[in-house]
Amino acid sequence: MNKHKVKAYAAKSEKDQLSPFTIKRRDLDETDVLIEIEYCGICHTDIHFARNDLGITVYPIVPGHEIVGTVKSVGSKVSKFKEGQLVGVGCMVDSCGSCSSCKENLEQFCKNGLTMTYNSPDSKIGGVTFGGYSTQIVVDQDFVLSISEKLDRKSVAPLLCAGITTYSPLKRFNVKKGDRIGIIGLGGLGHMGVKFASAMGAKVVIITRSYKKGQDAIRLGADEVIISTNQEQMQKNLSTFDLILNTIPSEHNVSMYLQLLKSEKLMVVVGLANLKFHTRTLLFGRNKIVGSLIGGIKETQEMLDFCAEHNVVSDVEVIDAKEINKAYGRVERGDVKYRVVIDINSLR
Amino acid sequence: MNKHKVKAYAAKSEKDQLSPFTIKRRDLDETDVLIEIEYCGICHTDIHFARNDLGITVYPIVPGHEIVGTVKSVGSKVSKFKEGQLVGVGCMVDSCGSCSSCKENLEQFCKNGLTMTYNSPDSKIGGVTFGGYSTQIVVDQDFVLSISEKLDRKSVAPLLCAGITTYSPLKRFNVKKGDRIGIIGLGGLGHMGVKFASAMGAKVVIITRSYKKGQDAIRLGADEVIISTNQEQMQKNLSTFDLILNTIPSEHNVSMYLQLLKSEKLMVVVGLANLKFHTRTLLFGRNKIVGSLIGGIKETQEMLDFCAEHNVVSDVEVIDAKEINKAYGRVERGDVKYRVVIDINSLR
Repeated sequence: MNKHKVKAYAAKSEKDQLSPFTIKRRDLDETDVLIEIEYCGICHTDIHFARNDLGITVYPIVPGHEIVGTVKSVGSKVSKFKEGQLVGVGCMVDSCGSCSSCKENLEQFCKNGLTMTYNSPDSKIGGVTFGGYSTQIVVDQDFVLSISEKLDRKSVAPLLCAGITTYSPLKRFNVKKGDRIGIIGLGGLGHMGVKFASAMGAKVVIITRSYKKGQDAIRLGADEVIISTNQEQMQKNLSTFDLILNTIPSEHNVSMYLQLLKSEKLMVVVGLANLKFHTRTLLFGRNKIVGSLIGGIKETQEMLDFCAEHNVVSDVEVIDAKEINKAYGRVERGDVKYRVVIDINSLR
Repeated sequence: MNKHKVKAYAAKSEKDQLSPFTIKRRDLDETDVLIEIEYCGICHTDIHFARNDLGITVYPIVPGHEIVGTVKSVGSKVSKFKEGQLVGVGCMVDSCGSCSSCKENLEQFCKNGLTMTYNSPDSKIGGVTFGGYSTQIVVDQDFVLSISEKLDRKSVAPLLCAGITTYSPLKRFNVKKGDRIGIIGLGGLGHMGVKFASAMGAKVVIITRSYKKGQDAIRLGADEVIISTNQEQMQKNLSTFDLILNTIPSEHNVSMYLQLLKSEKLMVVVGLANLKFHTRTLLFGRNKIVGSLIGGIKETQEMLDFCAEHNVVSDVEVIDAKEINKAYGRVERGDVKYRVVIDINSLR
């Protein structure tokens, strides 16, 4: 078999330093697309996997699931994509296709084992999958997304994870003109929440401890700022929200935010964190806390099309591959506006 | 004005001991019903108010919002009730009637200030309202419930709070034959949850640390017991539930319970407590945590009619009024099967 040889970066278990090496990439199957990667976003999940925070990392690992590139070649039965086309790959590269979740276009909940873009058992060639901190990737056409040439391609990369993570619940819970939507946490996820809710016509309110973050949210499209440590402001806004999108990725108490919801409305949580609350703050408005996890492939394509229509992209900082370790530290400190994207040309 | 003089018991701020005294009871308005109280349940909320745990108690207080009695007389315009009829009063005795919540038959969320059965500003005669640890009560007919003579009346009392609290979410979320329903916490609320879910045709599973409680739940109508400290049992039941009713009234972590839910299903919380969870346990199934608070008057009547049809009542222990303090201690220790009801004749 003619293996594609691909240079790739992976955090190593011992030294965690830039160390190019050669890994095997699978041949093109009939329905596969070979993508020449141009940009790949850095998601906080990459850091958890690179550092084995969850205890499930298989080394060597190639992180990266916010991939933008162009089609280099396609398998004999590929009908959806052609050479030179601008495409993306998100968090998933395969699923069973036959379970009830897959049939509902919710591949992220595949009951027979989803293949994630990296560090996931590779159903085709064994071993684990390798992600987008790499010059090329081979993905079945059903997991490749089409991207409009109208959009700034480096700023598109984060849409493949941070974008769909925030778009999906806002869409599912029917955010629309006239709704009052609160966003908590202004990072990679939160800033996309502001942009999407605003593009959907809602009145967007950033709820933050930081005046500076509040002002930046206004620049991104928010209509209003509530400083969460200001009791008077919080009191004035009790029972005024139709939905609150909670993107905070660390432990916190959500009781005070739940009280901002109108009756029978909901807080969507998309960050990974320990949460606390007093049930009183749910009971007295019959409110809900709801979880949401990325989105299916069909919805991800819909999100990308929505972005093309409304010119929504992420605010990014582009770095070379050699700056990844430094960027990881900055992402962890929340010191990024608002997503770091690797220029994959720096690997070539 | 000819005031009805009513003997009543109230916990006192200083000594908290049985101490009958005389309080003013309002005259019958045109739409009022005078009820001769026969039984009144003891709800944990009574204890919080009697002891001023929430810091909002106005003394003297007469607790009690699980009231069963017979109509003694009615105002000139009362059309719904007649002398001698068996009736009940729950947690509410008045609301504005004109706000959006009241118009949706959700008086418990009245936007202009609900009048609770006790310790609530009395909109008719000033001061605060007095509850059911008392021989009589005067209530507007719109807040009086009709009770079938078929039911054991002493066992009906807890339906007016514990009953509607558990019936309402099970009904609202459409629990039906074939559903697999989990109940957490087997006390006043939980035991009613078992009975209602079972009467609705669902497969009812009690999830408890205690083998003994599990067996008692089977007696009450549960189909199955899961011992929550048994890892193997919990693992085997991952993703199998359509709804979990959480009645635990003290701080706990719900992560392990959330993992028992099928995708897109929900945990209803009805107890007052601090909860914790990791968002991972909501995200990966797009699950929900939802609050529910008693039910409106129309739904409470519907619940009582359902009870008459399915012969559902509470399991009670009947006590004399002089035993209230002792009973409070037992309720707090969870040492009651499953609700204490005061025989109001012991006050006469």
